[in-house]
Formats: sequence, C-alpha cells, structure tokens
Amino acid sequence: MGESYKIATIGSHSALQILKGAKDEGFQTIAVCKKDSVKPYKAFNVADEIILVDNFKDFPKIENELIKKNAIIIPHASFIAYTGVEAVEKLKVPYFGSKDILGHEANRDSQRDWLKKAGIKVPKIFESPKDIDRSVIVKFHGAKGGEGYLIDKSEQDFKEKIPPHKGKQYVIQEYLIGVPVFAHYFHSPLTGETELMGFDKRYESNVDSIGRISARDQLALTKVDPSYVIVGNLPLVVRESLLPAIMEMGERVVDQSKKLTKRGLFGPFCLEGVITPELEFYVFEISARIVAGTNLYIEGSPYTWLKYSEPMSTGRRIAREIKLAIRQGRLKDVVE
Amino acid sequence: MGESYKIATIGSHSALQILKGAKDEGFQTIAVCKKDSVKPYKAFNVADEIILVDNFKDFPKIENELIKKNAIIIPHASFIAYTGVEAVEKLKVPYFGSKDILGHEANRDSQRDWLKKAGIKVPKIFESPKDIDRSVIVKFHGAKGGEGYLIDKSEQDFKEKIPPHKGKQYVIQEYLIGVPVFAHYFHSPLTGETELMGFDKRYESNVDSIGRISARDQLALTKVDPSYVIVGNLPLVVRESLLPAIMEMGERVVDQSKKLTKRGLFGPFCLEGVITPELEFYVFEISARIVAGTNLYIEGSPYTWLKYSEPMSTGRRIAREIKLAIRQGRLKDVVE
Amino acid sequence: MGESYKIATIGSHSALQILKGAKDEGFQTIAVCKKDSVKPYKAFNVADEIILVDNFKDFPKIENELIKKNAIIIPHASFIAYTGVEAVEKLKVPYFGSKDILGHEANRDSQRDWLKKAGIKVPKIFESPKDIDRSVIVKFHGAKGGEGYLIDKSEQDFKEKIPPHKGKQYVIQEYLIGVPVFAHYFHSPLTGETELMGFDKRYESNVDSIGRISARDQLALTKVDPSYVIVGNLPLVVRESLLPAIMEMGERVVDQSKKLTKRGLFGPFCLEGVITPELEFYVFEISARIVAGTNLYIEGSPYTWLKYSEPMSTGRRIAREIKLAIRQGRLKDVVE
Repeated sequence: MGESYKIATIGSHSALQILKGAKDEGFQTIAVCKKDSVKPYKAFNVADEIILVDNFKDFPKIENELIKKNAIIIPHASFIAYTGVEAVEKLKVPYFGSKDILGHEANRDSQRDWLKKAGIKVPKIFESPKDIDRSVIVKFHGAKGGEGYLIDKSEQDFKEKIPPHKGKQYVIQEYLIGVPVFAHYFHSPLTGETELMGFDKRYESNVDSIGRISARDQLALTKVDPSYVIVGNLPLVVRESLLPAIMEMGERVVDQSKKLTKRGLFGPFCLEGVITPELEFYVFEISARIVAGTNLYIEGSPYTWLKYSEPMSTGRRIAREIKLAIRQGRLKDVVE
Repeated sequence: MGESYKIATIGSHSALQILKGAKDEGFQTIAVCKKDSVKPYKAFNVADEIILVDNFKDFPKIENELIKKNAIIIPHASFIAYTGVEAVEKLKVPYFGSKDILGHEANRDSQRDWLKKAGIKVPKIFESPKDIDRSVIVKFHGAKGGEGYLIDKSEQDFKEKIPPHKGKQYVIQEYLIGVPVFAHYFHSPLTGETELMGFDKRYESNVDSIGRISARDQLALTKVDPSYVIVGNLPLVVRESLLPAIMEMGERVVDQSKKLTKRGLFGPFCLEGVITPELEFYVFEISARIVAGTNLYIEGSPYTWLKYSEPMSTGRRIAREIKLAIRQGRLKDVVE
Repeated sequence: MGESYKIATIGSHSALQILKGAKDEGFQTIAVCKKDSVKPYKAFNVADEIILVDNFKDFPKIENELIKKNAIIIPHASFIAYTGVEAVEKLKVPYFGSKDILGHEANRDSQRDWLKKAGIKVPKIFESPKDIDRSVIVKFHGAKGGEGYLIDKSEQDFKEKIPPHKGKQYVIQEYLIGVPVFAHYFHSPLTGETELMGFDKRYESNVDSIGRISARDQLALTKVDPSYVIVGNLPLVVRESLLPAIMEMGERVVDQSKKLTKRGLFGPFCLEGVITPELEFYVFEISARIVAGTNLYIEGSPYTWLKYSEPMSTGRRIAREIKLAIRQGRLKDVVE
C-alpha cells in the first residue's frame, strides 16, 4: 500500500497485534525491543525493523531516530508504564491518541470523577477503615498486576491484615460479587463512532485457580491468599440484551472526556469491572488505550466480524484509523 | 442473491448473528426493536430495516406489516418469552421451526419425558422434600436467569431455606457435581442430518465468581449466596472421544420428537447439562431453538469449520436452510 | 494437490483436525475407527476412507494394508495409549515423529530429568511421605484422565487418605497454587524453528465446577472430592511479556532432546503446568505429540494467525511439514 509513515511500538503487551495490524493495513513497522524480549517479534515476523534498547526508559533517546524514519508511535500500557507519563507527554515523535487524557486516567480520583459524571456505576469508596460496613477490597497504589490486594469485612479485619503493608498508599473499595467483564471499545474521531470491539476476562494467578481447591482443602492448607497477577486473558461474549447499555456507556465516557480535555479520549479504550446478578455493570477502572485482552482477537472478535467483512483486531483498527486520517489529510486529528 | 423473502427477528438474544447470517446468505433483513435497544442493530449494520415497537408484546400487531414485506420470522428465547407461547402459536407470518414442539418443551414434565424416552440421562427428581437423600438443587418456576436457586442436602436443610420462597412453585433436582456443557445442534429436515454446531458454557453472575473468593473469606463474608443469572458465554471444545455419544444424543432427541408431533423438532436446538467425572452427560434442559451460546461463533466454531469451508454461525445455518428450501420448492418443510 | 502419500490416524483425540489439516494440504486421508466411534469422522467429512477395527489394539494387524495404501501415520495420545509404546516402536508403517523419544517421555523420572536439564522449573518431588513439609498432590501412575488425585498437607494427612489407593504406585508432588497453562509448540526439523502454536487450559470434571459451590455448601455437602477427568479445553492467550521466556523453554526442551536421542523431539509437543503469582511457569509434564487443547484452534489460534496468512491448526501444520519434506526429498527426516 506504500504508506510513507511507519508504525512503531515497544515490544511488549499488545505489540504483536499492533504491528501485525499495521502490516495488514500496508504500513512498514518498527518494534523497539530489549535484547532479551526480541524473540516473538522476530518469530512472528511482524516487525520490518527492530530497534534494540538496553532499557525501555531510554525510549526518548531513540526519538530522533524514529522521527527520521517517519514513525508514528502506538502506546500501550507497558509503553506508558516503562516510559513514564511525564516523558510521554514530552515526546515529539507523532503519537497515536490523546496525551491530555493521561493525567485524568492516571489519578484515581479524577478517573472516578470522570466515570461518575459519565453516568457509569462505580463501586463505593470508603474514606476511612472505620466506615467499613460491608465486604471491601483494599488495593495498594502502584501494585504490579494486582499483587497483594486484601479482602476485609470490617474495621477489625482491616486492622489485622494491614500491618505487612505498612507505609503503602491504599484505597478501600466496596467488594462487589459479580463476574469480571472487560469491555473493549474504539472511538474514531474521523467517523465520530464509538465501536464495541469485544470482551474478555483476565486470567489471574492465583485467584483463578483457588476455586479448584475444595473448601475443605483450602481451610486445611497452610495459606491460600488470593493474588491478582495477570497471566493472560479468556474470551467471552456478553448477553445481547446488555449490549445497548454497554455501548452507551462507552459513548458517554467519550462525551465526558471532551469536557475534560480539548480533544477528549479517542482510539481504543476499555471499561473494566463486574456484572452483578442484578445485571448492573460496575466499572472499577478505565484504560485509555489498547488492553491486552484484545490479544485474543488477532483474527477478529465475534463483534468485529459483525461489523467488518475482514479480520479486524484492535491493533489493525488503529492502523486503519491512521490510514484513513492520512488519506483525508486529517492526520493531526489522530496523532499528537 | 436477491431472495424475495426477508428474514426478521426481535432485536435481542441472538438477533445479531441471525440477521448477519441472513445477509451473508443474500436475504434482506428486518429487526423488530424497542427504541432503547436499537443501537447494536444499527451499529453492526445487520438490519436493512428496523421496525420500532413500544413493547415486544405488541409483536402480533405488526404481523400484517411483516406478512406484506414477505418476512420469515426466526424465533429465539427472548422472542418466545416476550411474545408468549400462545401468541406465537397463533402467528400467521411464516415462522422458521416447529410450533408443535413448543408445548413439549415448555412443560418440565413432558420435556423430561421426551429426554428420557430418547435415552438421555437426566438428573433424578425428588417428588417430596422428605425424599431428599443426597445434594439437591431447588429450582423455582419462572425464575429469570436462574435467580434464587437453592442447594440443599437434606429435608431439614430444605425446610430452613425455603421460607423466603413461600408460594413459589419449585422442582427438587439431584445436584450433580460435573462441569457445565451446552451442546449446540442443527437438524435439517432437508438433508435429514443432525449437525453438531459447537459447545459453550454459560457465564453466570455471581456463581462464576465466587470461586475467586477464598474459602476462608467466603465464610467470613456476611453472605455468599450463589445466583445463576446469565451474563454471557464462554467457548469450549469437548474431548473428541465423547463426540460420537453426544452426536447420537442429538439424533435420538430428534427421532423421539417425531413421535411427539407430526414434524418433530428441526432447526437449531441445545442440550444443556453437566459432564460428570464418569464422563456421563446429564441433561438438565433442552432448548428447542437457537441458544445465546452460539453468539460466540459468529465467524464459525471449531466444529462448523470442519464441515464448512466458510464461516458458518448457527444464524447463518438457519438462513442457509431457508435458502435451500426455497430453491428446492420445499419452504413449507421448514416454516409454519 | 495430488500427493501420493495418504495421512492416517486413529479416530479419536485430535483426529478431526489432523485429517482436516491433511486434506487442506492436499492429502488423501484415512481414519481408523471402531464401529461405535465412526460418526464424527463421517459427519465432518474429514476422512476419504475409513478402516474399521474391532479394537484399537488390533492396529498392527492393519499395518500392511496401510503400507500398501502408502499411508503415513500421525500419532496422538489415544493412538499411543491404545496401541501401546512397544507396539508403536515395532510399527513398520511410516510414522510422523520420533519414536526414540517415547521412552524418555513415558518414564516420569527420565521426563523430569529431561525437563530439568533443559532449565525448566518443575515442582519438587517428595521421595517419602514423611518428607512432606508443604501442600502436595499425590498422583497415581496410569490414572486415566487424572482420576483420584489426592491433596495432602502433611504425612498425617497422607496416611489418612491413602488407604483406598492401596497397591497403586504414586508420586508425591509439591502442590503449586498457580493457574493452569498448556503451551503448544511445533518443532520443524526442516526449518529448525520451534513455533509457538497457542495455549489452552483443560476443562476438568469435577474440579472446574466445585468453585461454583459456595464454601458453606461445600462443607455441608456429604462429599466434595476434586477429580481431574478431562472433559474438554478452553482457549486463552498469555501475557505478551511472558512469551520470550515461554518460547525459549520450547527451544531448550528440543535442544536437550537431541542429547537424549539421535534425532531428538520434533513435530508438535506441549508443556503443561501452572503459572504462579511470581510469573514462574512450572511444568508438570511434557507431551511429545499433538495435544487435545489444539482442537480449539481448527481455524487457527491468535498465534498461528500472526505467523501464517491462512488458517493453520496444529494438525494442518503436521501435514504441511510432511508436504514440505516430500518436496525437498527429506521425508526420512520427519518420519520413521
């Protein structure tokens, strides 16, 4: 197709589908890799070029090289985590998506405010342990992959379990018993549409295996403490009668984001929460970019197959948006 | 392809794949929607025409409009639930499938009798609480999405838990500990074949998340009562050595249905149950129509990919059957 | 395509995809079936020819017939189990894969030694019950589908539970609490590459349903003993940042196998274990052939879609390897 722009990302998280999708749309691709993680990007042949760095923190150092190569960067969670929000905001290489929204997403309070103003149900937050009047989950700031969360049912319970976590910042959140659902969206500034791309649930160690131990054995074993470290993702579809509400949730989140920043949220994003027995979708978190659950759908999800007559991963959808923007002379509407 | 018939259904349950499948087979499509649920059918572009109704109970009111448009109705569980079996039986608009079988399916006793005579293993039913000699599940008639089931292990246990459900009709069923499996079939009156279309398991709130709470925490929490509200579906494949028996079960169910009604069961249906550690498939229920688990396979299941050299959802398989029937001048063999 | 060789296997386990894949690569196919299991192979139209046997033990009796038909046998777990390792080693009909490796795989000690020398983490084995100092799982030799495993936390516990299993050989293995992951590979002797084909987890009865019973109900029920009988498989993808290590594990297992036998391991194989909250992949077992989890990916997995621009099941990948070997005059490099 010969687009003169190249699509680049850091080799991790969802880079395989981002680069594969870009190639499918006719772009040349660049994977920025550490030496010890280059293997998948070579083996699956998704990168026309590989740039090696010693450390992903060095990403700004290769920025000029990427600019010379006419690259557009696609961010993902590991890209943001490794490079850092501040460094990302300073990048001069074209970047797909909105940087303004990063701050609103990174801060738990402003994220929560964003969701609530968009009419999204969120779990109750307890300001103080002494307010605990139901089951709660205590989440620690900056915990990698959800490690070390606590479940408490009272102030007493909280006080007994918190000592090993001394000094950590935490949030006490209502523990909702519902099934985990991650809803993937893509908002196009070119068409104005917010597309529903698919659903997944995370596969977390060890919490997704403790149910395989009988209650008797769990109680007998020395220690069965749930942890929430993400190991992978499982595909699912959601009851069709829930789709209208779930699609509107995505649209309202985008609408509200335009009140927060000039351009608002666009590109891929994800609402992450649980659906309760009352069929209410409570959202715990928004990811303002591509999520790893979309890796399930490299050849398309049941939902993208409905809309497109060809395989459409979220990675490919990003490349398609950039391609359309270039053709319409509107590239500045999708990159910063 | 220019078939002059149009395929219509109510916008819910599995309408996306039914309409997409119909379009793939060359039919024009009609979605009958309520105003607040029209979004997916527009966004995924599966409906050539949308007819709005205030309430699905009003379906018979638009019947003449559908007849004028030369529409064939495809029923699904929500269609039957919203319109009502009696109203469905009186419909004059062409209807895919057998209406005679609806009564045999709707009544628990006659359904059970049908399955048993087809040589299908079903869980034991206890006529009276005082007969309870093992773990049982108490299911309440008309409970939406499986809400409020009880698990008991004795008459005593039953008596303690039943009071909040006073006045409800119920059935006491042996509680079999095995993994849930839903087997999707399609019986073609044109070819005489009963095709195995795929498998799923339901994703139910909250029962599919309580295993993520450690036994210790479950016992400490105020209340962890399982509920069985369907939120979605998860894909799976079944051990290949079980397929011969599972395929024969589908065939026997169809054979037996022909003894119950003139035309018997045809089109899509589903056997829903558990497979025990002894590899016995106990069936709890038969759905005599398309089930929502087939929504996973909009682009085909591992099983339909074996048989067809193109994507074949259950929705598309229905449209294919109608198309073949039209071409063979046998439309009256598949619609009523 | 008119290859003069035919691809044959026993009708069970993963034969559907093996035969379908062979047909997709242009081979004629033969299914060796028992009368009562022939249905899927006919219905899904994957076998150009079906040879009926009374018992799979009789496989050697039809060997000459297969040789005359110019057949190449593709082994799978049921093929090995039914025919027996010794009988397989004596077969003269061309056999895809390495027979030398079978002995190293069949013996638990030599398999463990192989994995450890390949730098794979394996669970600790306790030589004697009195060494038990943590949670352990007791596995019985030759147990079909994982039936009857025990979980113990002490010598005392072991002694209480072992009596019903008197006379059985067993192994006492550290019980690691992590999520089950099965990694599918394919090593090509022609290209020298070890390809990552996909992932699954098993769907086991009853252990994958006991988490749906609340802890309170489990303790109240007469008896909830986990069993591990394989009923099917569920698809998943693994965190992208784990792929480099997982791909290297496959390569090291192949490298080490070449020190064990002349030709080493080639074709499909699987590393089966759990990923812990520390993101360590502990391997319990290696299967030196196609595993049933690949049945999920008859139309390709997310990983094979990255590499191939067409649907590529593991069954088809085998046929592709044979086809390439024939064209390069290197058939003897992939069959024995």
